[in-house]
Amino acid sequence: MFISKIRVTLRKSILDPQGKAVEHAIASMGFRAVEDVRMGKYIELKVNGATEEEARKMTEEVCGRLLANPVMEDYHFEIEKCP
Amino acid sequence: MFISKIRVTLRKSILDPQGKAVEHAIASMGFRAVEDVRMGKYIELKVNGATEEEARKMTEEVCGRLLANPVMEDYHFEIEKCP
Repeated sequence: MFISKIRVTLRKSILDPQGKAVEHAIASMGFRAVEDVRMGKYIELKVNGATEEEARKMTEEVCGRLLANPVMEDYHFEIEKCP
Repeated sequence: MFISKIRVTLRKSILDPQGKAVEHAIASMGFRAVEDVRMGKYIELKVNGATEEEARKMTEEVCGRLLANPVMEDYHFEIEKCP
């Protein structure tokens, strides 16, 4: 069994108002060194009874077709062996 | 400059209806091997003019006080040097 750890982020060219709001909140907490906050989604999924290659392919397809909007978002993932 | 890559996830004991919905959507796409989907948040923030140790401490505090709800959520992060 493998676990896919997926990060879906807005493309750099897309405005991120939620990130901006968090950035202001962090600044108002006194952390002036923090800048350029970007918010995204994090998804973990377990893939059962497959090889690592199959798990990777399946994750790729799930990301492209369901989890990420290819016009506005990028995705990255790692596959880890589940103990 | 460092970049903090933060993952905020619901604790294992907390029900995740959004994850369940995604799980059903994935199953209806035909991927029967995918199970146990958990949704979380992913946040990237840049920390300016600090050592790695300071960036780590700052991220830790921002996570604990703002980004994660310590009752329901866990957080993990990595610090990377920004080129």
